[in-house]
Amino acid sequence: MAQMRICFIGDSFVSGAFDDECLGWVGRICASARHRKHDVSPYNLGVRGETSLQIARRWRAEAEIRQSAQQEGRLVFEFGVNDAREVNGKRQMEAAQSLAAAREILSAAFAWKPTLMIGPPPGGDAARNARVKELSHAMADLCALLGVPYFDSFAALVASPTFIPSTKAVDSTHPNAAGYAEWARVIDGWPTWRSWLP
Amino acid sequence: MAQMRICFIGDSFVSGAFDDECLGWVGRICASARHRKHDVSPYNLGVRGETSLQIARRWRAEAEIRQSAQQEGRLVFEFGVNDAREVNGKRQMEAAQSLAAAREILSAAFAWKPTLMIGPPPGGDAARNARVKELSHAMADLCALLGVPYFDSFAALVASPTFIPSTKAVDSTHPNAAGYAEWARVIDGWPTWRSWLP
Repeated sequence: MAQMRICFIGDSFVSGAFDDECLGWVGRICASARHRKHDVSPYNLGVRGETSLQIARRWRAEAEIRQSAQQEGRLVFEFGVNDAREVNGKRQMEAAQSLAAAREILSAAFAWKPTLMIGPPPGGDAARNARVKELSHAMADLCALLGVPYFDSFAALVASPTFIPSTKAVDSTHPNAAGYAEWARVIDGWPTWRSWLP
Repeated sequence: MAQMRICFIGDSFVSGAFDDECLGWVGRICASARHRKHDVSPYNLGVRGETSLQIARRWRAEAEIRQSAQQEGRLVFEFGVNDAREVNGKRQMEAAQSLAAAREILSAAFAWKPTLMIGPPPGGDAARNARVKELSHAMADLCALLGVPYFDSFAALVASPTFIPSTKAVDSTHPNAAGYAEWARVIDGWPTWRSWLP
């Protein structure tokens, strides 16, 4: 099987913040792929607190130096919750700004390497969840337009009996290890992800 | 206890290449610290194949955007084996070049944030081991001069009954999960590391 380097780019949910196992969903789905004998090298480029605008500024340089002429390169993005988060009563980025940044990131990414988008997750804050759900729907539409496969984390996790409760054990935003394991489980069951690494 | 963001910067041994658990020593020592109730956020900035010269070019920009005004920032480096590796019969970097790059990196790092240096490990190639051992000694001297604490991985692992055998199960360079666990165990027992995260 091909050697593959995958850059996982995004926010604290990519970096696996608050996971006592220090794996996040990224580490779990890659360990699962390696246990299926795939020679995959993950690079975790999640940064806590970043919005889509901040990710747009830095992802390309970081991803480029992690490619290798000898190995297949792939990109997986996840962001959105920080955009929809209110800081001092003000939403950090309006949906239209988020979608413009997402379009810039994903169209450049997809023109360069095979790319997947993992949508932002729900959490323990109902008002923010409504904003994240709406942004997730708009991101799904954008991805359909661009041809980038989209995984709807919000839909997959909002009904989970473990995910939102796991965020309430932390800060009502981030899951704990059990929540990351649940998120990894649903992504690992996504046929598009498995088409990369059967 | 203080929240802490630690950037782990270096080569494939930092990124945890070939670890089927996708933790490496970085993930293991940070999971261990989190299980001791430390609120630590690791950022893994290891890149496969990089020499000290390549790391010198990119570490600062990547580490800077991962800092937070609200959280304590720390830096941990590991590199050297790629410098001492021969490619097509030619050593990639002579020891003097490696030490000049290491001096540039570590003096700038230490002037900015508390910094540790983890020395390069042994592997299954005796000729390369001799070069890595010599480089490790010179790095230890440089670190003593700069005031940067140095962990001698080579000395700690060369006598280990599991580490070098674990590299022979992979490519005679990288350990497998058991080898990374052994490396993590010896770093986790280093009093200087534990002074950061008791």
